[in-house]
Amino acid sequence: MISPAIEKMIQEKAGDFIIPAVKIANVQADNPLMHAFLILTKVKYAKIPVLDKESHIVGLLSLSMITDTMLETDDVCVDCLNDHTVAEVMQTEFDTIKTDETLEKELHLLVDDAFLPVVDQQNVFVGLLTRREIMKSFNYVAHTIDDQYTITEKHVDPIHVVGQK
Amino acid sequence: MISPAIEKMIQEKAGDFIIPAVKIANVQADNPLMHAFLILTKVKYAKIPVLDKESHIVGLLSLSMITDTMLETDDVCVDCLNDHTVAEVMQTEFDTIKTDETLEKELHLLVDDAFLPVVDQQNVFVGLLTRREIMKSFNYVAHTIDDQYTITEKHVDPIHVVGQK
Repeated sequence: MISPAIEKMIQEKAGDFIIPAVKIANVQADNPLMHAFLILTKVKYAKIPVLDKESHIVGLLSLSMITDTMLETDDVCVDCLNDHTVAEVMQTEFDTIKTDETLEKELHLLVDDAFLPVVDQQNVFVGLLTRREIMKSFNYVAHTIDDQYTITEKHVDPIHVVGQK
Repeated sequence: MISPAIEKMIQEKAGDFIIPAVKIANVQADNPLMHAFLILTKVKYAKIPVLDKESHIVGLLSLSMITDTMLETDDVCVDCLNDHTVAEVMQTEFDTIKTDETLEKELHLLVDDAFLPVVDQQNVFVGLLTRREIMKSFNYVAHTIDDQYTITEKHVDPIHVVGQK
């Protein structure tokens, strides 16, 4: 369980956490790879969401997933980018969270995921929760917890512990 | 200032923090972009260090820095990758930390940097400190601080505060 004091402090900042979908570059699953190549070359995100026509998130796409397709032949192949779609190379196994996810699960997933797509109850993509936002909240907690709370080290008495056996 | 209790808990785990240089893919500043294109297509890191002959870190390189060069002409240009070196496109403005950096500065820099190259006193690249490692320590703190410390909310007495004026 997460410390109630830390959870409370993070919740104070939680309104700012999710980057809304409208601010995030995305591609459609049926886009040709050439289009996605140009998008990912120009945006600074390493990986972007892939959406279907109803804005459900169906995959994640990085530039290396695209350039790997260019190595199909002995030479680096540019025309291949017009012959394949995003759906063919995107990552389809990934974690998502609902808008009402617990902080405990979010923190756990963000150890291995650099960001988490957030979906609503109809699985429509609504934004991203990133490690950057958690880093900001961790800074906030680490710098201000002593202003709001008194933290006293517990001293475990070894005799008392033995006595409890 | 960072809470001493949180700093102490994080230092308990600090030995694991830095991913050693030997485990990290890198390229040399004078490598042709074609070589770096192949490396970055095959490794999973979004951005890798660029080293000189003496293992000093001189830049950071992502795949999009390379593919942007391929858009110099109207078509996507593969041959361009043999005409340019890593040094021409790499990011040269970036933060580094020394091996004895304060936790406070590390946490601050990792809000905007996904990772921090770590260098020794001779500026030789020794490894990376990543947000992932900090996420693990944040999980550790959030889950175990209540086992090691008693946390009591401070109640500010408004009359007392006024009286101090």
